[in-house]
Amino acid sequence: MKVVVAIDSFKGSATSAELNRAVKTAILSSFPEIKVETFEIADGGEGSLSAVKTGLGGHCVNVETVDLLHRPLQASYLLVDRAQAFIEAAEVVGIDKITPSEETVQRATSFGLGALFLDAKKRGATEIILSLGGTGSSDGGLGLLQALEGEDFSDIKITGLADVTNVYAGPKGYAKFFGKQKGGNSEILEAQDLAAQNFVQKIKQERNIDLQEIPGTGAAGGLGAAIILLGGRLESGFFKIAQLLKIEDSIKNADLIITGEGRMDFQTAKGKVPFGMAKLGEKYNVPTLAFCGALADDLGEMNRVLLASYSIQRSVLSLEEAMDKEVTLKNIKALTENVIKTWLHCDRNK
Amino acid sequence: MKVVVAIDSFKGSATSAELNRAVKTAILSSFPEIKVETFEIADGGEGSLSAVKTGLGGHCVNVETVDLLHRPLQASYLLVDRAQAFIEAAEVVGIDKITPSEETVQRATSFGLGALFLDAKKRGATEIILSLGGTGSSDGGLGLLQALEGEDFSDIKITGLADVTNVYAGPKGYAKFFGKQKGGNSEILEAQDLAAQNFVQKIKQERNIDLQEIPGTGAAGGLGAAIILLGGRLESGFFKIAQLLKIEDSIKNADLIITGEGRMDFQTAKGKVPFGMAKLGEKYNVPTLAFCGALADDLGEMNRVLLASYSIQRSVLSLEEAMDKEVTLKNIKALTENVIKTWLHCDRNK
Repeated sequence: MKVVVAIDSFKGSATSAELNRAVKTAILSSFPEIKVETFEIADGGEGSLSAVKTGLGGHCVNVETVDLLHRPLQASYLLVDRAQAFIEAAEVVGIDKITPSEETVQRATSFGLGALFLDAKKRGATEIILSLGGTGSSDGGLGLLQALEGEDFSDIKITGLADVTNVYAGPKGYAKFFGKQKGGNSEILEAQDLAAQNFVQKIKQERNIDLQEIPGTGAAGGLGAAIILLGGRLESGFFKIAQLLKIEDSIKNADLIITGEGRMDFQTAKGKVPFGMAKLGEKYNVPTLAFCGALADDLGEMNRVLLASYSIQRSVLSLEEAMDKEVTLKNIKALTENVIKTWLHCDRNK
Repeated sequence: MKVVVAIDSFKGSATSAELNRAVKTAILSSFPEIKVETFEIADGGEGSLSAVKTGLGGHCVNVETVDLLHRPLQASYLLVDRAQAFIEAAEVVGIDKITPSEETVQRATSFGLGALFLDAKKRGATEIILSLGGTGSSDGGLGLLQALEGEDFSDIKITGLADVTNVYAGPKGYAKFFGKQKGGNSEILEAQDLAAQNFVQKIKQERNIDLQEIPGTGAAGGLGAAIILLGGRLESGFFKIAQLLKIEDSIKNADLIITGEGRMDFQTAKGKVPFGMAKLGEKYNVPTLAFCGALADDLGEMNRVLLASYSIQRSVLSLEEAMDKEVTLKNIKALTENVIKTWLHCDRNK
């Protein structure tokens, strides 16, 4: 029997690698004969670079640049086989580097990412992959475009990894849909969206590209659009990372998949890790279980693609207690043992 | 496939019958071909009378008596086939009828139970079963003995149902072990225990019975001893009720047992419902799952007798929210669906 384990991080509590390891340990403690393959995983958000580095190796390249408020910053990206550059946007323009405010939502820029693109190009990278999650900028991607103005990236395959499908402008655009959590008030966001609308028109006329027709152009404060305008494409973060890590190959001959995330809800089916794993499982007729910190009442499409979903909670705790790493890892181990015994209809320790 | 469901009440949240029904509904909604047999169940504590009435029928007999503080009370007991009288001690001397204090622990008496015994005898009952859980008296059973003084019960089979095995006196006796929760301070309990020790000596001399050698004589403030001195015997509440309801017959050809209780911990193995169900399951090689409101970290012996245990919690809630009946029933339904799909490796709705 073979089990594939790929659980997204429980943000603020435990990493993907830690959760995978806990589940693997729990399975092997009761059933040492089971083959357990783990994949550190992410969906283009937090942890994406770590997941790719664990899976593919490569080395980190340090670059002097500026952060989203133009403060000096040494940032790193991953270079694999001197060919693939993997950049996590949040390394440079992460929302965790600032306290979002009306000032930052207007000032924050994606400019600093340009230095990493240029460094990768200089080192001969043939592919640049940019994970878009967790950014604090809301500049429509103009900072990055400005930093790379006049540079030619036509020989380099550029891929943006998004876990949302929002377009550039309008009610689902980067300003109106995401701007509030980045510090914007309605007046500021109205003005930003107007600029976005104008940019859409300009690009339509000058380059015959309709940013409103391309899902993901509104991701990461509009960085998605910058990827398109650099000649790149946008992909689902999960599926690209799964492809890089060859997760599909591992699933082909598996009997069971265990995935999960911190909190699963109806939005999980919009491309997050458990949805992606379940879809890969569906393809090869391998059932998928999700182990989560919390389960919303409405799991939407997830109910259809998963065989079953479990919360790791064992009793009533405060949020702080429940998010303690030690508690989380202990609970997911206990859940795993119980679910595997239920799955196998037996307990080898008896 | 056949599933036997017998879940103890989640005290303060949902009754045994409600929980059983929720689990049955959830199983049948996904797998209508599964045969589900439910048993309202208890272990001699709260809900025992209701469980027996649901299983065996019978009718309630009302008796004028007094409660544990000698206040007038109309209490009822269950009479089945004009032969078996089922009395729940807490109906007359329940701790929920008082606010435990230093006064009540000294005053409270089991005297009022006598009227129910006498009524049952008058109506020709051949068996009296007294469930001992949830009492507020700590009188060593002397009140009941006084009420029945001079009466002959030698033709009536008397059984006390206990879920504890404490003896009459000493550190594990009714005074020192249970007296604190009934309002006693150390001085009072010391005095009560001294009286208990003297009573043990007296009974040993007069009747050659050693109450310290009989498990359960210290149950219910010493009511266990009264049962012995009336010529009766003490049994595990769960196993007696399970026998009355013929649960064992149902388990013989079952494929799976689902049980549970509000909070499972290492004390569960001392005779509570999930332990009893799992032991019956073990006897016929039927695996048992426990669905609980909360799981302690240490489940002790329960880990050995159960195939697996699950908490119904789906996320972090306050204790008040988590104990809401609607939330509890919704959560146990969701858990049931997920566990049954895991057990069967399939989802018929797909």
